[in-house]
Amino acid sequence: MFIPAIKGQGTEEQQQKWLPLAYKMQIIGCYAQTELGHGSNVQGLETTATFDPQTDEFIVDSPTLTSSKWWPGGLGKVSTHAVAYARLIVKGQDHGVHGFIVQLRSLDDHMPLPGITVGDIGMKFGSGAYNSMDNGLLRFDHVRIPRDQMLMRVLQVTREGKVVQSNVPRQLIYGTMVYVRQTIVADASCALSRAVCIATRYSAVRRQFGSQNGGPETQVIDYKTQQSRLFPLLASAYAFRFVGEWLKWLYTDVTQRLQANDFSTLPEAHACTAGLKSLTTSATADAIEECRKLCGGHGYLSSSGLPELFAVYIPACTYEGDNTVLLLQVARFLMKTVSQLGSGKQPVGSTAYMSRAEHLMQCRCSAQRVEDWLKPNVVLEAFEARALRMSVACAQNLGKFSNPEEGFAELSADLVEAATAHCQLIVVSKFIEKLQQDIPGKGVKQQLQTLCSVYVLHLLHKHQGDFLSTGCVTPKQAALANEQLRSLYSQVRPNAIALVDAFNYTDHYLGSVLGRYDGNVYPKLYEEAWKDPLNDSVVPDGYHEYIRPVLKQQLRNARL
Amino acid sequence: MFIPAIKGQGTEEQQQKWLPLAYKMQIIGCYAQTELGHGSNVQGLETTATFDPQTDEFIVDSPTLTSSKWWPGGLGKVSTHAVAYARLIVKGQDHGVHGFIVQLRSLDDHMPLPGITVGDIGMKFGSGAYNSMDNGLLRFDHVRIPRDQMLMRVLQVTREGKVVQSNVPRQLIYGTMVYVRQTIVADASCALSRAVCIATRYSAVRRQFGSQNGGPETQVIDYKTQQSRLFPLLASAYAFRFVGEWLKWLYTDVTQRLQANDFSTLPEAHACTAGLKSLTTSATADAIEECRKLCGGHGYLSSSGLPELFAVYIPACTYEGDNTVLLLQVARFLMKTVSQLGSGKQPVGSTAYMSRAEHLMQCRCSAQRVEDWLKPNVVLEAFEARALRMSVACAQNLGKFSNPEEGFAELSADLVEAATAHCQLIVVSKFIEKLQQDIPGKGVKQQLQTLCSVYVLHLLHKHQGDFLSTGCVTPKQAALANEQLRSLYSQVRPNAIALVDAFNYTDHYLGSVLGRYDGNVYPKLYEEAWKDPLNDSVVPDGYHEYIRPVLKQQLRNARL
Repeated sequence: MFIPAIKGQGTEEQQQKWLPLAYKMQIIGCYAQTELGHGSNVQGLETTATFDPQTDEFIVDSPTLTSSKWWPGGLGKVSTHAVAYARLIVKGQDHGVHGFIVQLRSLDDHMPLPGITVGDIGMKFGSGAYNSMDNGLLRFDHVRIPRDQMLMRVLQVTREGKVVQSNVPRQLIYGTMVYVRQTIVADASCALSRAVCIATRYSAVRRQFGSQNGGPETQVIDYKTQQSRLFPLLASAYAFRFVGEWLKWLYTDVTQRLQANDFSTLPEAHACTAGLKSLTTSATADAIEECRKLCGGHGYLSSSGLPELFAVYIPACTYEGDNTVLLLQVARFLMKTVSQLGSGKQPVGSTAYMSRAEHLMQCRCSAQRVEDWLKPNVVLEAFEARALRMSVACAQNLGKFSNPEEGFAELSADLVEAATAHCQLIVVSKFIEKLQQDIPGKGVKQQLQTLCSVYVLHLLHKHQGDFLSTGCVTPKQAALANEQLRSLYSQVRPNAIALVDAFNYTDHYLGSVLGRYDGNVYPKLYEEAWKDPLNDSVVPDGYHEYIRPVLKQQLRNARL
Repeated sequence: MFIPAIKGQGTEEQQQKWLPLAYKMQIIGCYAQTELGHGSNVQGLETTATFDPQTDEFIVDSPTLTSSKWWPGGLGKVSTHAVAYARLIVKGQDHGVHGFIVQLRSLDDHMPLPGITVGDIGMKFGSGAYNSMDNGLLRFDHVRIPRDQMLMRVLQVTREGKVVQSNVPRQLIYGTMVYVRQTIVADASCALSRAVCIATRYSAVRRQFGSQNGGPETQVIDYKTQQSRLFPLLASAYAFRFVGEWLKWLYTDVTQRLQANDFSTLPEAHACTAGLKSLTTSATADAIEECRKLCGGHGYLSSSGLPELFAVYIPACTYEGDNTVLLLQVARFLMKTVSQLGSGKQPVGSTAYMSRAEHLMQCRCSAQRVEDWLKPNVVLEAFEARALRMSVACAQNLGKFSNPEEGFAELSADLVEAATAHCQLIVVSKFIEKLQQDIPGKGVKQQLQTLCSVYVLHLLHKHQGDFLSTGCVTPKQAALANEQLRSLYSQVRPNAIALVDAFNYTDHYLGSVLGRYDGNVYPKLYEEAWKDPLNDSVVPDGYHEYIRPVLKQQLRNARL
C-alpha cells in the first residue's frame, strides 16, 4: 500500500523520487493510516502535520494516545519509511487528511529516528497467520519533514503556505479503491476454493456409518447433510471466481473512463466493488470455518491446514472497509438510485435492472415445476424482483422519517439486508452471463450450469424469508426450488472431486494432510503427528517436576 | 471421562478398586474411544479385545492404522491408564464395543509398557487453546490385561468365557450422556456470555463517525447495525443460561426415574439434550466470532481474548456428538413422535405441544399490532406451529418413499431444519417459563422480558422463511415483528452494560483488554503491545542478516 499510495497521491516528481527507491528496496515503506482510536472513519484521524513556514517543513505529531498509528503491516520492526496520514494544518486551519512520507528509521543502523516511537502491536489470532507480520504502532513527537514529502497530487501547499487544489480530480482515489477491492474479491475466491478443495477431498476419504454386511462405511460426501453444506460452498468458489474476473474488467473500464475524464460510472463501480468485497469476504470467512467443521475432529488439527487458512483470512472482513460499513455505503447508493427512478436518470451497470421497476414490482414468478428453477430468466427475475422490492421497501420506510439521516440510522439493519440482496443479484447475474459464453472442454459448461443452479437455489433457500415476504415467490415455488436443489446435489456428487481438482492446487500450496491429492490421509496424519517436538522423547519433559510427584503422592515436591 | 466411564460401566468392585486411585491421582486416566478412522460411529471402532481363556486375559490390539486411538485428551504424554473402547471378541464372536482399563505407562518411570505405542497428535487450532492439552494417539500390539479390567456392569465375561448380560438396564448409559451434554449447554452459556461481555463493553468504549461540531464520535453500541448483531447474542447468553438450568433439573429428574426403573421419559430427555447441545454450541461458536468482528480490527489481537476463546470453544461443535449427527437423532425422534400422533400415545415433555396438533396445523397467528409480538402466548403458538408443521411436512415427504431409510437420507437436510425449529422452541419456551416465576431485584424481570422478546423475535426474523412458508405468520405480521424487534433494541441499549456486568466476570477471568470493567481500553492496549518480546529490542533480531543487505543492495549476503 506504500507504493500505490505514492502512485495515487504523489506528484510526478514524488513518484520519480520515491518509487525507484521503494521498488529496489533501498527503503522499505508501509502505509500508516489506521490509528489506535480510528479505523473506518478516516476523516476522524488525529495525527497532525502542521506547516512551519519558517523552515518550509511539516511538523508531524501524535497529539493523543488514540492518535498512535496502529496495525500498519510491516511497520513494527522492518519499515524505514511510512506514508503517514495526518490532518494538514496550515495557518491554524485544518485541511483534512493527507499522506506524508516520513522516514522512521536510520538507513545506517535501523535505529528509530528522534521523535519516532515504533514497535510491534503484539500477538494476533492463530499460531501463524499474521503473527509472522510486524503490524506496528507508531507515535510522532513533533517530527519535522521537508514540505515536498507531503503527497501533493490533489492538494498542494506552496512555499508561502498557500493551500492550492490541483486540477487532478479527487475521484481518482476511488479508482485505487476499486482496484484494491477487486483484488480482495479474487483472493476470496482463492481462499474459498482452497478450503472447499480440502473439505471435498477429505469428505470422499472419510467414511462413517452405513456399513452393510461388514463392508466399508459410507463416504461422508454421500450424505445429503454433508452435500447441502459443502456443495453450495463449492458453487460459491466458482461464483466468486467469475465475479472476480468481471470486476477486473470493471476496473479496466473505470480506469479508461477516468483517463478520459468520464466519471459517470464511478459511483456505481465503487458501490459494486464495495458490496462485493463485503459479500465475498464474509461468505468466505464463514465458509472456511464451515469446511473445517465438515472435516469433523481432524479439521481442528493444524495439519488439516484449515485453522491457519481461517486465521489468516478473517481480517479481510475488517480491512479495506469493514463489511457492515461497506454494505451501508451500497445501501446509500441504492437509496439514491431508487429515489431517482422516474426522474429520467437511467440506472447504469449493476443497477440497470432497476429501470424495469414497474415490471419487477408486480411480476409473479412463473415457476410451476422443479425444472423451471433451472431457467436463467426465471431465476434472474426472482432475484431482481427481490432486490428491487427490498430496496423500494426501505426507501418507502425512510420516507416516513422527517430527518432522512435519522431514518437511515434507524433502518440500517434493513438497509444492510437490501444491500446484500442487491450484491447477491450481481454475483448470480455474472455467473449466468459467464455461462452464456463459449466454455472450452467437453461437458464443462454443463457442470458449471449445475453449480450455477446450486449457487442460486441455495441462496434462494437461505433467504427464503426475503423472497416470500416480498411476494416474489410463493411457498409452493420455494418448495419446488428446494426440491430441485436436492436433486442437483446428486448431480454434483460424481464430479465433485474433479471440480475441486480443477482448481489445480498443488499439495504444497494447499498445505493440508486432509486435502491431499492422493487421498492418502490416515498414514500421513499418523506420520505428521510424530513430527511434533513433544514426541521427541517418550517420557515428556517435566515428568519429574510435575507428574511423578503427583503419582507418588509427594505433592510437596511438585512444581504445580 | 475416565472416572464417569468407570462409574457408569464398571461393576461395584471395579469402582471400589479404580476410583480411589484415580481420585488420589495415583493413576492418571484418560477416556480412549475415538480412533483415527472412527468418531461419530462408535459401533464402527476397530480396536479388539479378544478373550484368551487359557490365561483368563483379554488381548487388546490395534489391527489397522485407522484403529489407532486418536484425540483422547491427556493421553499423549501424561496418562498412565486408559479406559479403551474395543470390540469384545469371545470364541470368535464379536459382542460389540465395551470399555477396558489398560495400563499404558510404568508407574515407576513413566515409560510406555511393552506393546503400547503412545504419543501426541500434534498442533491444533489457535496459539493456546487445546495446544496445552496432550491429545494423544495410542496403538496396542497384542497387549494382555486381566479379565477383570473389562468394565462389566452391563455385560460380563466369565472365567469360562461365557458372555452374560447383567440385569442392569443398558439405558443407564444414556443417563451419563444426558449429564455430559447438560454440562456442555451450561458451558455454552458461559462462553457466549464472556464473548458478549467483551463485545458489549468495548462497543460502549469504541467511537466511530458521527462527530458533530468537533464533539466526540458516536459510541458504536448506538448504531442499529451493531445492536442488531450484538443484542440477540446478549439475549442468547441469557436464554442458554435458563435452558441450561432447566436441563440440570431434567437430568435430576431422569436420574431419579432411572433409579426407579422408569425409562418412559428417557428418549425424550435424550433427544432434548442432544438437540440443545447441538443448538447452543453451534450458536455459541458462531457468536464468539461475530463478537470478535463486532470489535473491529482490535478483536483480532490476542489481547482482546476473543481469538483464544474461539479456538478453545469450537471443538464443542464436534465432540460428544457432532452437531449435525445429533440433530438427525432429534429428527428421528420427532418423526417417531409424529407417526404416533393419534395412536393414543401422548407426546411428553418438550414434545407435549404436539398433542395439540390439530389446532397447531391450522391456527393463524393473531398478531395485528407491533405490541402483540410481546405476548408470550402469541410467540409460543407461532414457534409451536412452525416446529410442528415442519416436522409434519417432513413426515409427509418421508411417506412418499417406499424405503423409509432412503427417504430419511434423502430428506436429511430438511430434517435437520425441522429439528432446529423444535430445539429453538424448547429454548424459547423455557425462557418464557422462567419469566413466569418470581425474579428478585427491582426491574430485573422487565429487563429479562425485553431480552426474551429480543431472543424470540430475532429468531423469527432469521428464520422468517420457515414461518412464512408454513403459513404460521403472514408477511405483514413478520414485518410487525421486525419493527418490534427494532424498538426493543432501543430498550436494551441503556441497560446493555448492566446486563453484561451482571455476569459478574472478573477482568482476570475475561482475559480481555477490550472487555475491561473500567473501560480503560486504549492505554492498556498500548501497554500490552510493549510486552511483546519482539519489542525487547528496538532494532529487531535478524536486521543484519535479512534487512540490512536488502537496503544496502548486498543481496548476496542476505539470508533470504
